Amino acid sequence: MKLELKGLTKRFKDVTALDNVDLCLEKPGIYGLLGRNGAGKTTMLNIITARISASEGTVTLDGEPVFDSDSKLGCMHLMSEVNYLDTDLRFKEAVAYAKQSYGDKFDSDSAMRYAHAFKLEGSKKLGKLSTGYKSIYKCCLALAMDTEFVFFDEPVLGLDANHRDLFYRLLLDSYQRKEKVVVISTHLIEEAASMLEHFIIIASGRILMNLDSEQMSSYATAVSGPRDAVEALATRHSVISRVSLGGLETAYIKGIVETDDPKLSVCAVDPQRLFIELTRNEEERV
Amino acid sequence: MKLELKGLTKRFKDVTALDNVDLCLEKPGIYGLLGRNGAGKTTMLNIITARISASEGTVTLDGEPVFDSDSKLGCMHLMSEVNYLDTDLRFKEAVAYAKQSYGDKFDSDSAMRYAHAFKLEGSKKLGKLSTGYKSIYKCCLALAMDTEFVFFDEPVLGLDANHRDLFYRLLLDSYQRKEKVVVISTHLIEEAASMLEHFIIIASGRILMNLDSEQMSSYATAVSGPRDAVEALATRHSVISRVSLGGLETAYIKGIVETDDPKLSVCAVDPQRLFIELTRNEEERV
Repeated sequence: MKLELKGLTKRFKDVTALDNVDLCLEKPGIYGLLGRNGAGKTTMLNIITARISASEGTVTLDGEPVFDSDSKLGCMHLMSEVNYLDTDLRFKEAVAYAKQSYGDKFDSDSAMRYAHAFKLEGSKKLGKLSTGYKSIYKCCLALAMDTEFVFFDEPVLGLDANHRDLFYRLLLDSYQRKEKVVVISTHLIEEAASMLEHFIIIASGRILMNLDSEQMSSYATAVSGPRDAVEALATRHSVISRVSLGGLETAYIKGIVETDDPKLSVCAVDPQRLFIELTRNEEERV
Repeated sequence: MKLELKGLTKRFKDVTALDNVDLCLEKPGIYGLLGRNGAGKTTMLNIITARISASEGTVTLDGEPVFDSDSKLGCMHLMSEVNYLDTDLRFKEAVAYAKQSYGDKFDSDSAMRYAHAFKLEGSKKLGKLSTGYKSIYKCCLALAMDTEFVFFDEPVLGLDANHRDLFYRLLLDSYQRKEKVVVISTHLIEEAASMLEHFIIIASGRILMNLDSEQMSSYATAVSGPRDAVEALATRHSVISRVSLGGLETAYIKGIVETDDPKLSVCAVDPQRLFIELTRNEEERV
């Protein structure tokens, strides 16, 4: 099943949150949707799942508009911070409700198993849970979804390291149960990176990069050493950014770079560092 | 200056949030206070800085009780999620107020410089800022403090990767301006670890571990391979935890472990992984 965004634009008063976005999601896999606060990630996910409407452009599934089509919307699920569920709903009730709505595309047994692993109290109302457990409640439902597309908007915000680790493991369990397109919007790039097969980076409402993990790992090289030596190498390449600390300079250079200069050290750039260097603004260069 | 916690206990109704904690903080450095949600970190920081009172035990600075002593409390600052500042206060006003309260122990110029780096709007009232910028506002004030003790309770929660990276760099800038005891409570152990010189792990209201970074890095070894081979090695050692994935088993073993068995791979355990393995509960072993 093919999800296509074409010319998607969203304006709020004087802010353009999404600016002419084209994107195609079809191949099952785990996609990271990365962007700074305010970059447009949540707006994009909300438009895809028809929670809000676009100012311009279209979202289609296999060529047909998603908006206003219950059968198309039934192929997608969005887990987000904002609550679209009744806060009086206990987890067990939410599971029954999801089963009723999604049928074969929801696995109740898995939902209960995930909730048990998190020690989520099934008899407590959603509204009575702590912030962390509100996320966990919604994550457990989303992880049990076998819709063709499952979107997670900041699923691990506020969770401790163990709960985040558990979420990542259960996500793999969920994916093994049924392959699907999973899109995760997260600020915790470093720890999610090993799980991500594709990286979509969004900046100021536009798609800045859309790479698979292999392309990502060879996208840039960090070269460190004395300023003169780094600059001598850097001038021959395309430089993403430079960072100085004491007498040492690091240049983040596009592509794979090699050097014989013994004063220079060269290493690959991990996805979180690459993201930071690509999206850093001027004031932050201190 | 020596901060000492002796027999510190805090009970809320039927929950013992802190259970007979002894701790001494004296040497300047950057300390990580790590614990799961509900482990007692925030309670501990709130008692140290006299925001709440202990059920039992004492907090002293150079032997004198902190509670009710303005001069002792003036040696400490706590940045926390809960707002103790007037929400009508603009950042510039908060800086003036901090200068008035803390005198030489607050660096107004640094505060303004940090706010500029974060692009914090100085003329906006605290209450009108986004969640992320509320944290940034409080971080900028705390980073400008030159009190002998500065505590940060989840300073980077909700910040994007660039803002977290900037916070860590400014923290080092702040520490270089004046050495002090900096304690950071955080769930993002992996990315903070390289900055931390000491690791204090708290579990169920008790200090589980208090190690410097060198002790931490040699605390455990991960041994992976076929189950039989791992078990043959593990039985001769103290095992923290075991994880199975497919046919592969990993045992986290105390201390530095070496082996000649070519079927086994051996590697050091990073602090976040060690934390997870030490504090995992039964239900999470899925």
